Formats: sequence, C-alpha cells, structure tokens
Amino acid sequence: MSASPQVSSQATLAQLHPFDPLTSSEIQLAVKILESAFSGEALRYKKIDVQEPLKKDVIPYIEAERLGHQLPPRPARVLQTLFHRLNSGAFCKALLNVDTRSVIYVKELPKHVQGPVDVDEMLAIEKLCLESPEVQKEVEKLNLPPGVTVCNDPWIYGTDDPNENRRLFQCYMYIVAVDHPQNNHYSTPCKFSPVFDGITHEFVRMDYLPAGVDHSVMATAPWKPVKTIQYAHELLDTPLRTDLKPYIVQQPEGPSFTVDGNLVSWQKWRFRVGFNTRDGLVIHNVTYEGRNLFYRLSLCEMTVPYGDPRKPFHRKQAFDVGDVGFGVTANQLALGCDCLGHIKYFDGWRTDSKGEPVHLENVICLHEQDNGLQHKHTNYRTGAATAVRNRQLVVQMICTVANYEYIFAYIFDQAAGIELEVRATGILSTAPLDNEDGQTVPWGTNVGPGVVAAFHQHMFSYRIDPAIDGFENTIYYEDSVPMPQDDQTNPFGCGYVTEETILKQSGTANTSVDRHRVFKIRNDSVINPITYKPVAYKLQTSPAQMLLMGPNSFNFRRAEFASKPIWVTNYQDDELYAAGEFTNQSRSSDGVEKWVARNDPIENKDVVLWHTFGLTHNPRVEDFPVMPIEKVSVMLKPDGFFTRNPALDVPASAQSFNQSTLHQAQGADCCSHTAGSVADRAKLYKRIE
Amino acid sequence: MSASPQVSSQATLAQLHPFDPLTSSEIQLAVKILESAFSGEALRYKKIDVQEPLKKDVIPYIEAERLGHQLPPRPARVLQTLFHRLNSGAFCKALLNVDTRSVIYVKELPKHVQGPVDVDEMLAIEKLCLESPEVQKEVEKLNLPPGVTVCNDPWIYGTDDPNENRRLFQCYMYIVAVDHPQNNHYSTPCKFSPVFDGITHEFVRMDYLPAGVDHSVMATAPWKPVKTIQYAHELLDTPLRTDLKPYIVQQPEGPSFTVDGNLVSWQKWRFRVGFNTRDGLVIHNVTYEGRNLFYRLSLCEMTVPYGDPRKPFHRKQAFDVGDVGFGVTANQLALGCDCLGHIKYFDGWRTDSKGEPVHLENVICLHEQDNGLQHKHTNYRTGAATAVRNRQLVVQMICTVANYEYIFAYIFDQAAGIELEVRATGILSTAPLDNEDGQTVPWGTNVGPGVVAAFHQHMFSYRIDPAIDGFENTIYYEDSVPMPQDDQTNPFGCGYVTEETILKQSGTANTSVDRHRVFKIRNDSVINPITYKPVAYKLQTSPAQMLLMGPNSFNFRRAEFASKPIWVTNYQDDELYAAGEFTNQSRSSDGVEKWVARNDPIENKDVVLWHTFGLTHNPRVEDFPVMPIEKVSVMLKPDGFFTRNPALDVPASAQSFNQSTLHQAQGADCCSHTAGSVADRAKLYKRIE
Repeated sequence: MSASPQVSSQATLAQLHPFDPLTSSEIQLAVKILESAFSGEALRYKKIDVQEPLKKDVIPYIEAERLGHQLPPRPARVLQTLFHRLNSGAFCKALLNVDTRSVIYVKELPKHVQGPVDVDEMLAIEKLCLESPEVQKEVEKLNLPPGVTVCNDPWIYGTDDPNENRRLFQCYMYIVAVDHPQNNHYSTPCKFSPVFDGITHEFVRMDYLPAGVDHSVMATAPWKPVKTIQYAHELLDTPLRTDLKPYIVQQPEGPSFTVDGNLVSWQKWRFRVGFNTRDGLVIHNVTYEGRNLFYRLSLCEMTVPYGDPRKPFHRKQAFDVGDVGFGVTANQLALGCDCLGHIKYFDGWRTDSKGEPVHLENVICLHEQDNGLQHKHTNYRTGAATAVRNRQLVVQMICTVANYEYIFAYIFDQAAGIELEVRATGILSTAPLDNEDGQTVPWGTNVGPGVVAAFHQHMFSYRIDPAIDGFENTIYYEDSVPMPQDDQTNPFGCGYVTEETILKQSGTANTSVDRHRVFKIRNDSVINPITYKPVAYKLQTSPAQMLLMGPNSFNFRRAEFASKPIWVTNYQDDELYAAGEFTNQSRSSDGVEKWVARNDPIENKDVVLWHTFGLTHNPRVEDFPVMPIEKVSVMLKPDGFFTRNPALDVPASAQSFNQSTLHQAQGADCCSHTAGSVADRAKLYKRIE
Repeated sequence: MSASPQVSSQATLAQLHPFDPLTSSEIQLAVKILESAFSGEALRYKKIDVQEPLKKDVIPYIEAERLGHQLPPRPARVLQTLFHRLNSGAFCKALLNVDTRSVIYVKELPKHVQGPVDVDEMLAIEKLCLESPEVQKEVEKLNLPPGVTVCNDPWIYGTDDPNENRRLFQCYMYIVAVDHPQNNHYSTPCKFSPVFDGITHEFVRMDYLPAGVDHSVMATAPWKPVKTIQYAHELLDTPLRTDLKPYIVQQPEGPSFTVDGNLVSWQKWRFRVGFNTRDGLVIHNVTYEGRNLFYRLSLCEMTVPYGDPRKPFHRKQAFDVGDVGFGVTANQLALGCDCLGHIKYFDGWRTDSKGEPVHLENVICLHEQDNGLQHKHTNYRTGAATAVRNRQLVVQMICTVANYEYIFAYIFDQAAGIELEVRATGILSTAPLDNEDGQTVPWGTNVGPGVVAAFHQHMFSYRIDPAIDGFENTIYYEDSVPMPQDDQTNPFGCGYVTEETILKQSGTANTSVDRHRVFKIRNDSVINPITYKPVAYKLQTSPAQMLLMGPNSFNFRRAEFASKPIWVTNYQDDELYAAGEFTNQSRSSDGVEKWVARNDPIENKDVVLWHTFGLTHNPRVEDFPVMPIEKVSVMLKPDGFFTRNPALDVPASAQSFNQSTLHQAQGADCCSHTAGSVADRAKLYKRIE
C-alpha cells in the first residue's frame, strides 16, 4: 500500500460537525485513498459512509456546544468502506481517516459474510435474470400473448444452509401484462423463481413455487390470462372520486423552525438531522431548553419473515436495514405530495459501484403539522377556557424496499415528547395460488384471482441512546399493582401503587399490558424539586406479538432481537445494529443478544435501550393492490423531568391566528322543498303547534 | 291523570327522522304532557330526552332510505323523562309518546336509585356549601389573608354503604388565592370536605382529608400561603413563546362533506350525527357506498376510580356518562380554537330544572383534516410513484367534567375505517399533601407544594352495534399461532396460521397482545368473492390494564364492565349503557355483566360488541397544572369486506392541489459569517481540495 494522498486543507474539514452526514467530496476522497492504498488495483465499491464517531470524543464537543464553551478539536472524521477486490474476489472493510487522509485499517471479511445489496448490483441481477437462457426457456413455456412480458424482483436470498458461502439472489418473477411504468406486476406472480450467484453471475437453480394448498410444485404451463389488479390512477377500471376539495396549509409567516446545516431548532428543541446509507434518518444530540435528552435515536434494524411454511418462501426474510439500507432506499420526496405546508428537505450522498458520488436529493423532509388540541380546560363556573393547539415538528423519511414502503417520522411536540411513528404501506409481497375454485391457504389471504399474500411480521428495532440530563442513566420499569387488601392500609380495596424494577445488568425485559408496565430512563443524580424523585423520561412502548418463528428456525436465529421487546446494553462504540453488522444471508444474529450476554452493570451507566415492536400482518384483501397505511407508534415523554407541563407557555388557540371558516347550512336557501335542517324543522314544529 | 294535550299537527312531527335529537319544542311538549298528567303538581325536571327508538321499528325505515324505497311510517317518537314530584319527593321516570302526546308510563323509582347530577343541582350544591355555617366556621379556621377565599367542586358521592338511600354530595374545597375566572384552585386543595344531602340540603358531615403519608387526619389549621400553579396564560409567571408562526388551513372550494339536517355525507360515507344528554355524540346508521356497516356507535360509559386507599378518597369514582352525561358537559365550541379549517357545528338541547329548554350551541363539530399519507408506492425501476393523502372527517365533542376534559372524536377515513380517538386533558384531581419536607405517597405524584395527584384509571366502554352488510352478525377472534414443527407441513419452522374462535354465546373475552388477537365482526351470509370468506370488519382493540380495584370493592362491583375488555350481548332495546341505567351512588352494576349472563345464542344474530379500554393514569408532574393530551384510539377497519383497497380511487397527492412551500435555506444570504449548510460546506470543501 502506498502513502495516503496529500492533504490540502485541514481547516475546511474542521468545519464539518461530528454528526454531519457524508459529503460527495468525502466519497471522492475515500476512493482516492483506497486507490492509492491498493495501487490502482480494480475495486468494486459497495459502501462508503461516515463511521459513527467515538462517543467519548464527541461528548466534550457537543457539551461545549450546548454550554457555549470554546469547542475542543473535532473528533477524528472516519469513513467506513466496503468493497470487493476484483482480482482476488475478497470482500473487504476499511476505515479511513479523513483528517489525515489515511487508511486506519483494511480487513478481509470471512467468506460467509455477505455485504448488503447495492443499487447497481440489484439492477445487474435483474438484468441477468431476464437475459438468462434458463429463464427465457421457462418463460417460453408460459406461451405469453403478444405484448405480455415478464419482470423480476431480485430478493436477498435468506438462509437455510449454514455451509452456503455463495452470494445468492432469489428472483421472484411476475407477468407484465400492461406496458406502463406503474403496472402492478405483484398481482400476477409466476410459479418459478430462478436463483443466481451474485458474484459469478451463474444461474444456480430454478425453484418452482407451490401454487396449490400443499407443498407440491408443478412444471411451468401456459399462462392463463387474468386481469392485473392495478393501483396506478391511470390504470384503474373505475373513475376517480371527484368530490374531494382542496385542503391547503398556509404558513404566511414561514415555518417556526430554523435550520443551520443539519442543526434544527424548533420551539425549545435542538437536534441534528443525521443521514447514512444504512439507518437513513438518524436523530443526534437532542436537547430541550438546553438540557440533554438523547444522544442518538435510530430505527436501527427490522426483519420481515413470512409465515408460508413452504420452500422457497421460508427464505423470505428481509432485514431492510442491514440487507439493503434505508438510506439507499429512501425516496426522493416531492413538494406537495408527501407532506403539506412549508417543507425543508435534506439531501444525502451514496457511492455507486465505481466510487462515483450519487446525490440523493430530498431524502428527508422537515415540516410542521397541527395535531388537534394539546390541552384544554374550561372553568365550568365562569365558562372561561384555555385551549392550546398541538403544533408538531415532523422529520420524515420514506423508504421503498422493492414492493413495500415504510414511512418513518420522528414527531417532536411542544410538551417535550418525541413520537416515532412508523407507517407501513406499498404493495404486499405476493405468491401464486390456483384459487379459481375457491382455494384458500391458512397462512395467507387471497387478494385476487391467482394471487395470495402470505401472513408475515414486521419487527422493528428502535435504538434509543439516552442522555437524560447527562450521559449516565438508569433504566427501570414500573408496574401498577393493587395494594393488598388490609383493614388498616387498604380498607376499601381501591388502593393501588407502582412497583419499580431496576435493570441492574444488561439484559431483556417484557412488556406487560396487564400490569400497565412503563419503562423509564432516569438520571439518579438529578432530583426533581417537585416530585423529589430522579428526573426521568418514559418510553411508551408499543406492545406487540414477538417473532412467531420457532427458536430452531433460521428466521429466529438470525433475528433474536425480535424475540423480546426490551433489550438494555451498556454503550459500546460500534454496537449500532440490533441484528449485527452483516445480516445478508447471516446464519445467526450477532447483535443485542450477544451484547446483553456480557452481563454488564448498567445502573447509572452509559446505557442503550432497544425496543423491538412490530406488526403481525395477516393481509386484508383491502391491503391490495396498495396498502392503506398501518401505523405503529412509540413515544418518549418526560415523566418527572420538568416541574410542570412544559407546553404551558404555548400561546392560546385563537381564530385570529387560525382563521377557520364557519360552515353555512347549504340546504337553507336552495332546498326548501326537501327536508331542512333540524333547526328548521324545530322552527316549523314550533310554529304549527 | 288527565288526557294528553291536543295535537295540532302530526304531519310536522313526521318530518323528524327517527334518529334526530331532541328539539326545544319537544321539551316544551314533554312539560305540557307531564303537567297535564300530574294536574299541575309541582315537578322538578332532571332530564327530558329522546328515547332510543325500537330497533325493529327503525330498521324498515332506514333500510327503505338506504334502498331508495318508499318510507314506511316513522317509528313512534318517544321521550324519556326523569323528574322529582316535589310534594312526595318521589323520583320518577316517564316515557311520553310525542306523536300521540300521551304518557306511555310513569313509574316511581326505588328509594336507593339516584338520577344523574344536573346543572342546576350542581350550582345549587356549590352555593349551599359556600353558604353553610358549618363550612364557614371551618373556613374561618384557615385564617385566610384578605382577598383569599374558598370554592368547591361538588362531587358525586360514590358508594361505601349499601344502606345509604340519601342523595349525597361530597364537596371538595379549594383555596382561591387569585381572583381570576381561570384561577387554578386545584393547585390549592383544602383539608376538609363537607357532605350535603342533595334533596333536603342538610349538612351531613365534615370529612377531614388525610394530608400526610398515612390515614390520619388533623383539625383545620391556618392556611400556609403557597403560590398557586396557574395554567391560564394571563396568570403565568413566564412569558409566552413568541416563535410559533401561524398555520392556516384553507379550503377555498369549501368542505368535501354535505350536511342535511343531521345526515352527513362525505366521500362514500353516510351517517347521522346523534346527540343526547347522556351519551352526547352518537353515530347512527353508518353506511359506506350504500352498504350497511354500523347501526349505532357510542362511547356509552366510563368510570374513573382513584387509587388513594384513604377515606374519603375511596368514594372518588366518577361515571361521567351515567352520573352526569356527556351531552350535559359538552363544551360549546369556538371557531378556530378547537379545530382548524372549514367547520360545521351541531347544536343540542337540554332541559333545566324548571322544564325550560336550554340551547346547547356548537356542542359537536365536524371538519376535515389531513393525516399525512394514506398509501404510497414507488416503482423503483421507473421511479414512478403513486402517493395518496389521507383526508379524514372528524366528528368531535369535548366534555368538561369538573376538573377534567375529554375530547372524543370519530374519525372517518377514505379507506373505510372509523377511528374512535379519545384524548384526556384538563386538570388532575388533586388532594392536599404536606410535602414541604420531601414527603411522597406511593399512590400519587407530587405536582406542587402541598398538592398531590392520586393515581387513577380512566376506563371507557365503547358500544358498537354492528350491521356488517345486514343486522345479523357473528363475533369471533383470530389469534396468530405458530404451526407445529413438522417435517412435512412445517419443515423450516417458519409457518404460522390464524386460529379462529367464534363467540357462540353472550359473554366476555380477553385481548391478547402475545397472540396478536384480532376481534372481527362478520356476516356469515355474504361471501367475499375474492377471499371466499364472509365479509367482515375488524376491531383493532386498545389492550389495556383492566380495573385495578379488587372484586370486593364497591369500585369494582359498580363497574364490572371495566373488568374485561370485550363483552358481547344479544341486542335488546334499552340496553345502552355498560354499567346500567343509574350509576350515581349505585351499589352494583346493572349492565353488561347481567346481560351476558343470559347466555344468549349470538352466532349470526343481532349482536352488540362492547369494548372496554382505558388508561391507567399515574400522573406525571408534567400533567399539571393542565395536562398535555393523552391519547387512546380504537379502530374499526374492513377486513375482507371489500374486494380491494377502497381508497384506490382517491386522486393522487399533487402540488397543484396542495400548494406547499419549499423552504429556502435562511442562512444562505445573511449568515455567511457562520457555518453554512452542509451543501455549502461541501462546496467549500470541494473547492479547496
């Protein structure tokens, strides 16, 4: 390896904030460093991104910012890269120091480790599949009418063989009956599915999909034409609704937020919008009124295993963060489509396979919304009312993972709460089913002729790195329990209290609806002067069914994070992803389940709280051909952190500010020949009496 | 009793729809009928309202409406009245036939039956308390400084004595340290609480409140002045936020709904907005695209028991529907304060104690809202996206029950879902606590100096009277369960299916998060042509901790509905309220627990589904002096009712329609001396490199 490229200016680099996302120049610099290090050997780039800076180095920096002190030197700016050496086929990871323009390390990863799918690779496999003679031979058997073609979605392969070291893709194939950029091929799945080697580009095997009610498969037969169930407006067989009137959000004085680089200030909040190719949106360094709340928030992993027990569907288990990356799949958002009002967009960068920077425009959006009332009280004696509306700040990212869409939003409110809202939408992953004679399967829902959508789960891991008034916190939970019946202490049997359980060692915990279990994060060294208890935030969990797949299944072994709703670890740099660093074709998890096993003491330490929540999604036919959003939400709320309602000083809701419109009865003038309003009727009634 | 008053016109009465709320003329008519029936004997009116019409009479009427057939005669219009005969003191209920202007029956209710509190009574008791010599004597002991006075909230008494037949009120007393219409007296509770007889107006007893950490009480001592914690903007000790910019909803073409009397049409929905003094807002006769969905929806009861085990707090158990009534306590809403956009208000009527109609203006509001995205899909190959926004119709009522506020909204969406959203806000019910030396109690939270807010529960009963494609339905639940591991049927251990349990007899069921239990309502006689299964709607429950009070407590015995999340009964007229008809000072429930005990067959019958959900509310100090909303929500969603996503035909979201604004970087022009945006930095970085 040769020396690192010349450094022309350190001063400019110093302007980057430790939490700033990757710049295009850094991609170019990384390529330069690696080209230099490998003396021009041919490399294929999979990933170039910012490495999360070391926490111990960042804390002095952000604390100086928060307190208005002189800034210490910025922590080292480090890039993480994944690439293949084309000569040897070795898959490598390298860390690069941007400040010194040098390689920190290069390591060749074990043979069984597969990196995530990248965009160029996905497109290449798709093309490979379509051009494969074996596939074309199979397609011929379909005997498709003129104008009808096929397409494919290359799927990450999943795992069913611990000795498989090849990088494999399972292509699910579909009939394209309508030539339109939004044709819904998921409505017309084929019954065969070729497997390819992603490195050698070899055809590996043709899998045939069971399309009956049992495990048997059949040879490919001519396609029986069936109408595609379309979602695109141009392709619908019904007219669009014409009675929806415009609804316009106006902010004549502009938004209430300000943005400086990636630093967002809104009401009493300050935080940094982070972005990387894996997590996509990350929230860094959240403070409220200058007090520390959270070091980092991220939806750090998810898995979607399917409940169809039949081969090859058992391998359908996406890890959308680790296998692909939400940064890579984030939609480039369009003004007026994805949000209303005054909208700020943030961009991102990724590399392509050649090391060229790719600009990801508008991948994160920021806007305000009104969410009804925040608090209200009317003094019934005087009629005097205080009503305050619930303005919120939404930071949002929308990811398309092949068929499916996820909408992730962090919603900041004026009462110091942060909601993580996840909306699932997009198109169900489908499979063929010969259902014209009324066939159904117990693990799926018929969503159209010849097509079934299998039951599946969406299991999310929300990584919460807290900093409640400081970086050493304690995690505990409180249950609400009846007091024992007792003539002295609980004579009427109505008493109830809370029972506190502190998590003293890294480990797991269950949610409990029946005990109204609430998880809290507190700072034992800061006592609230009103409650006389340590200041705390609570996590309002989203209790959910955990992973349904049995502990012997690969689905379970690869996603242990999805078997328990709460995990608590002692903070360690580089422990960011619940299922581990490499999930694609993983044989087992290498994440939270390993880290909690250290049995670290975690009381009053730098802890990380991981909340697994999810949706058991047994599709409705109404979820097809595109799914109305299904929403899950998790809240972080102050609980004894302030001395009173922090939204007290939000001005009252008033017509002068909001300019609403009163509805005038439309029937009053023109419809006297039909039944009028109740008021009219009442008048009539009175007059005649 | 004399003959009924003369009827001047039947034709006009016939114009009232069976579900129309009470008119002022009907109040006057009811008074005339009763005056006539009792030959002018002095009556004190408690309630005059429309009696829910007999379902068997209504169905032919609404079915004729739905199908466009000639209407049959309107079902008899019947009023329900509650009144005291002042001569005898008897508490009576009478049903009156409006059409024939005659008494259907009058019955004297048993001595222990207490009707709900009415507005005149509440004000009278409040005055009685303040003027009581016993109370004044006690207040004197407080030795209040000049300008400082007391006030009281008369509370329904609750129950701890099965032999108590008196109508009692427990007055909780507070210091009024600031003379202002929105002074927050709940911040400064007194330590004594007089009890009065609501009929004789006698002073019954002075209760002293435990203000330490045990059950002991003390004689009244001079008040130690303490600062009131205020919520009203004028009384805050901090300035208001000045950085919140206006957010205006404009609907230049008007709303997308039309209203004819109480009939609302919006998108493909039609329903009737009902109103009565007890339920407040009721939703009648919900259809979608002309198909029946629900006969009636109502938040029919709730109870709020407190967890402080000490006398007299054990009697604090409000039944806000049965003890008072959401119609009576509904706020008269103000344009631009409670909702944004284009707003239609509905009025209501109640009687006062003299039988005079009282106009309740703007007690229900109707408006549209935008709730983000409804569905989106991007074809990653072509980049072509379909994005549809989630317009909703909100029907809302806000009730003030002394200190607390509830915001109830039925939210109709374009994908045929109905959300019942409950927001709790207002002021915590407080108690005195001598906490200046750091005292805390295990059943409450200190929310200020000298004041504690006890743990409590809000348990709601949502009464769902379904009509899924017809009036005979079956209730069942589905659990998601792993398939047994089996080499043939589940060789990879990933298979899971649903397990169905039909409720064949009236009874109860539990929710189950761990089994992802979903309750469904189906019509066995209508088969979905795509799924091959009966059409159905699902109830997305809100699993919650049930009542914490033990089965021997009066709190439990009076509110058995709150001990189980799901109740299913065979429909019977007059079974509308989960805890029974009379809840005030009730000794035990007389509601769902009795009706399910009939063990009626309920498969494929006219059934009613009651969902108990709630909040275990262990107050945060942040909930004081006024509480940021705490939200609970229950969804009704089609599940195999349609053949595809019913919102497919909603037009796409487009900038031309939505007119959003792009945020321009504010730092770009004026802040070149500070750190610019990332894009700026990246440019700099690039240039220097």
